[in-house]
Amino acid sequence: MTGKFIVIEGLEGAGKSTAIKQVAKVLAEHGIDSPELTREPGGTPLAEQMRKLVKEGHPDEPLTDMAELLLLYAARIQLVDNVIKPALDSGRWVVGDRHDMSSQAYQGGGRGFDKALMENLRDTVLGDFRPDFTLYMDIDPVLGLERARGRGELDRIEQMNIDFFHRARARFLELAENDPSVAIIDASQSLEDVTADITRALQSWLEQN
Amino acid sequence: MTGKFIVIEGLEGAGKSTAIKQVAKVLAEHGIDSPELTREPGGTPLAEQMRKLVKEGHPDEPLTDMAELLLLYAARIQLVDNVIKPALDSGRWVVGDRHDMSSQAYQGGGRGFDKALMENLRDTVLGDFRPDFTLYMDIDPVLGLERARGRGELDRIEQMNIDFFHRARARFLELAENDPSVAIIDASQSLEDVTADITRALQSWLEQN
Ligand SMILES: Nc1ncnc2c1ncn2[C@@H]1O[C@H](COP(=O)(O)OP(=O)(O)OP(=O)(O)O)[C@@H](O)[C@H]1O
Ligand SMILES: Nc1ncnc2c1ncn2[C@@H]1O[C@H](COP(=O)(O)OP(=O)(O)OP(=O)(O)O)[C@@H](O)[C@H]1O
Ligand SMILES: [Mg+2]
Ligand SMILES: [Mg+2]
Repeated sequence: MTGKFIVIEGLEGAGKSTAIKQVAKVLAEHGIDSPELTREPGGTPLAEQMRKLVKEGHPDEPLTDMAELLLLYAARIQLVDNVIKPALDSGRWVVGDRHDMSSQAYQGGGRGFDKALMENLRDTVLGDFRPDFTLYMDIDPVLGLERARGRGELDRIEQMNIDFFHRARARFLELAENDPSVAIIDASQSLEDVTADITRALQSWLEQN
Repeated sequence: MTGKFIVIEGLEGAGKSTAIKQVAKVLAEHGIDSPELTREPGGTPLAEQMRKLVKEGHPDEPLTDMAELLLLYAARIQLVDNVIKPALDSGRWVVGDRHDMSSQAYQGGGRGFDKALMENLRDTVLGDFRPDFTLYMDIDPVLGLERARGRGELDRIEQMNIDFFHRARARFLELAENDPSVAIIDASQSLEDVTADITRALQSWLEQN
């Protein structure tokens, strides 16, 4: 029995990290204990170093959009090959704080890399590896960034202009609406309502799978 | 008037760094002074950090072949966009210690990534940017590694088994033989003879271009 890979996606401050706690709780109620928790970009020693390059850049040199994209995929394949796949193969479940959909939304929608390039790179790097189930936490970026700001200083990505995040959200929604393995959660609601929606969506998926 | 991009390629210890001094000398005799000297992977602050990940890896985590490949291209596009193209556009010449041919040989030939994938990634990242002229320093890897060993401890790449380098050399030769912008130098010769061959090849190219 291999484990399942569940991913939480969404913009900055959508409530992904908060959602993961509820996901873990619902899984535990279904007898699925201590899933492997991952975050992207990062989640392994080498991938965390790549994350740092993406998040901080360099004071004397712009990080090009292409290098950012390649670093994100380098980090992703480190995590997939060294953590996610071994966990799944050993029967453990994995809950991911972001995965490939974030690249499709941020680098594809936000930075404007075309869809063919994005899909081609994803297939080249990941083959046909995909999450089993995704909860996409949908939020207006203005509200999300307001929440994120509460946590401290904004990094290189979080400092992008608001149009970038509007484009990313539009791509997230387009992908989510066309993929039956993605549930859309209205993340602008109160924490109580968001939690209830996550529980419902996950329970319904668990019962069908 | 844009500058020209000349690249020196070859296995470890082939004599690339040594060759560059002669290339600079010949260029100076032709009135081309102080070319921009680059090395790959690396050559910019961010690209050097990526080089470090490739060269050192991590004691607790294998660097996957795919992540290595993506890091090399991330480093390459940083160097091309932030150093090489600006220099060429301003009229300066650039002399590179390795460039894309090394990836085709090491990651394509050595690691075994297929040619279509390698060409596709190159075209995706670099578009149609190519060196104007390449000196490929051909050497038996046994001899090259012997020379390189003289310089100190071997890094993660230099520690690969000898078959890896035989495959890389075969790919280098195949590419060089099929590309009229590449001159093949027999790098197993004495330094004197190598220097004479480099001078001849470069002068002949300069006169025709
Ligand atoms: N439904 C909600 N209503 C109000 N505040 C919320 C809600 N969900 C989360 N928050 C708060 O918003 C902030 C951001 O939430 P969280 O860290 O979970 O978001 P995130 O999506 O993980 O952000 P990031 O992408 O930056 O990691 C936190 O302070 C959190 O407590
Ligand atoms: N033709 C030659 N005959 C003998 N020794 C040589 C010759 N060319 C270079 N060497 C010596 O071999 C060693 C490696 O040369 P060099 O550093 O130029 O190679 P390289 O291709 O730049 O290596 P690397 O890929 O590791 O950077 C140096 O000690 C250099 O002095
Ligand atoms: Mg979070
Ligand atoms: Mg050298």
